Amino acid sequence: MRAGEDVVHAVYRLAALGDDSSESFLDRARAIARESTLEVPEGVASDDIEASLLGRVVEVVPQSAGHAEARIDYPVDVLDGSLPQLLNVLHGNISLLPGVRLIDADLPDSVLAAFPGPRFGIQGMRTRAQAQERPLVSAALKPVGLRTDELAGLAAAFARAGIDVIKDDHGVADQAPSRFAERVEVVAAAVAEVNAATGGHTAYFVNVTGPVERMEERLQQASDAGCGGVLVAPGLVGLDVMRAMAAAAPALPIMAHPSRGDVAPGRDSGVSPELWYGLFYRLAGADAVVYVNAGGRFAWSLETCQRLNGRLRAPLGRLRPSLPVPAGGVSAADAPDWFARYGSDTLLLIGGSLLAQSDVEGAARRLVDQAREAGACRGDDRG
Amino acid sequence: MRAGEDVVHAVYRLAALGDDSSESFLDRARAIARESTLEVPEGVASDDIEASLLGRVVEVVPQSAGHAEARIDYPVDVLDGSLPQLLNVLHGNISLLPGVRLIDADLPDSVLAAFPGPRFGIQGMRTRAQAQERPLVSAALKPVGLRTDELAGLAAAFARAGIDVIKDDHGVADQAPSRFAERVEVVAAAVAEVNAATGGHTAYFVNVTGPVERMEERLQQASDAGCGGVLVAPGLVGLDVMRAMAAAAPALPIMAHPSRGDVAPGRDSGVSPELWYGLFYRLAGADAVVYVNAGGRFAWSLETCQRLNGRLRAPLGRLRPSLPVPAGGVSAADAPDWFARYGSDTLLLIGGSLLAQSDVEGAARRLVDQAREAGACRGDDRG
Repeated sequence: MRAGEDVVHAVYRLAALGDDSSESFLDRARAIARESTLEVPEGVASDDIEASLLGRVVEVVPQSAGHAEARIDYPVDVLDGSLPQLLNVLHGNISLLPGVRLIDADLPDSVLAAFPGPRFGIQGMRTRAQAQERPLVSAALKPVGLRTDELAGLAAAFARAGIDVIKDDHGVADQAPSRFAERVEVVAAAVAEVNAATGGHTAYFVNVTGPVERMEERLQQASDAGCGGVLVAPGLVGLDVMRAMAAAAPALPIMAHPSRGDVAPGRDSGVSPELWYGLFYRLAGADAVVYVNAGGRFAWSLETCQRLNGRLRAPLGRLRPSLPVPAGGVSAADAPDWFARYGSDTLLLIGGSLLAQSDVEGAARRLVDQAREAGACRGDDRG
Repeated sequence: MRAGEDVVHAVYRLAALGDDSSESFLDRARAIARESTLEVPEGVASDDIEASLLGRVVEVVPQSAGHAEARIDYPVDVLDGSLPQLLNVLHGNISLLPGVRLIDADLPDSVLAAFPGPRFGIQGMRTRAQAQERPLVSAALKPVGLRTDELAGLAAAFARAGIDVIKDDHGVADQAPSRFAERVEVVAAAVAEVNAATGGHTAYFVNVTGPVERMEERLQQASDAGCGGVLVAPGLVGLDVMRAMAAAAPALPIMAHPSRGDVAPGRDSGVSPELWYGLFYRLAGADAVVYVNAGGRFAWSLETCQRLNGRLRAPLGRLRPSLPVPAGGVSAADAPDWFARYGSDTLLLIGGSLLAQSDVEGAARRLVDQAREAGACRGDDRG
């Protein structure tokens, strides 16, 4: 009934829930396959629908730690070419069950074809930064509460230092001290002025996350003001909103922020971070994907981060690779280590640690120098 | 610095992470308050910004089971009137931390004022159904794979039985056997024809969840076709997309579906279901809120469901109450018990259990009769 590979392969981690027998794991896997597709008890759908559209449990493999991995194939005919329905099948109602975590998904070309993915990707980001080989570096404008002129002053300092991408903090939105409409103009102009004086190529990514009715307008304002890209937090507005923006005019690179992800590490439920940020963000068109790096404030493992990097850069149908952006408490002092570890196809974001230096511009300049010294490095994780 | 009550009160449940001393819980609460507002280390922001915008830990109360509850107040000036930024402050980056669960939030009138909430609410749903006192009842069109004419036949049977709200399954989207554009016309016409013949008031809620660029068009098509409302799954498209739809023209009641919630019960992370569906869905304008009922397929506790019902119906600024829609494997045989337990301000959704009967129309008619017999019941949870 299902021709060749025209299925979506999904892998779930099932946590033990008291009765963790093989039979019980198998029953749970079958319940997941039914819930995600037909959502009716056995005997309700016709034989033809059961045979053609029901999710199929491929195998359930008990793991050492008292849990199991369930492999389920979904026929592509339950999809409709949209991202919401893809999310619904892979992790819709079953996100409401205890002890079910989506840890892997493999999409056939017939599904990938509906998603253009990143419009610029790693190579596009490099071309715009005029940096073909070395790692890229980013700094953040924050905290909330700074006035627009203060943020513009900070941006000018980062631009003078040669930072590749200056991004708004995702919490700097449309508050009174710095309204979006003013900030986008003033900060972009400050960065452009420095670029004109230095011959630099610093880009300002303004935070366009906001009421969904305003985001198209904000994208246009960002383009009109000369921003090099935009910051979007899809967890706050919806992943499909970012996908739509990545397909809309005007075309600007998108840096995606991880806020409000259903992904805290070590969870029994939700989606694994490497899959959520490494596959779904790329599918939804993020050119650069911010995540919370190992060794920072969020206790994510190095292995998780490396797998996430790998997902973003690996071949995926005809989709361009996305640039990994480790962040979230990375210390400026450790930058060379991260370049060596993650390789040059990385945009290292140093937020608070740069701002905490007495000479912010000098610290930013050192970061830029370190990226140049790192040059075309492969990284430990590309062995 | 903070006048009166102009703060958002939030409560987090902190799970033990190895070092579960009171001091450690307090440190984690302070880190949450900082991460959700300033997001810079101490010493970076000015004294004025620290004093006016930093989240404030009110108290951290150790609980018996080795966890703690942290109460944090956020100054409203970190918000910007948008739902994305409200989500970002309450549960943004900290959703990426292990062992942090948002379990309560209390919004001052100054914040609530930005949200019109449900346009119809419980009373509006009752008026349209011409049922002022009794519980309302709903049935679902599924499974995916049925052709439009088959779905229309099912809808006509439910309408003849007097079901108040017929909804698409949220997995019935825009697949080949029943494209949205055809379904919305044909099913709405089938229901209208029965209503005209019987004098009934059955409403068809078509599933408009889909690519965000198409949802405005689908809302218009639903209105043009004479649908009584629309079904939206905000977990799949973004909560703010539903909020925008609830404020847009044409005005149709919105039934919100729970798919892809960060809320599985018993989790250490995410958001509690009663808060996510009970507060945020209402804030975002859902007139009726589907959730997975106790005793069904999802192992949610009765207490969770009762608290969720309470949230949807309780006073909340000037926002209308939303109608709770228990669903997710409720057996038709148990309907009278649920009416007695939850009271008449309830829309009971019986999906697969109705479809599994040999005489679907007869079973639906019994459900309608039971709702009429229940009449104006208070429910156990409204004591």
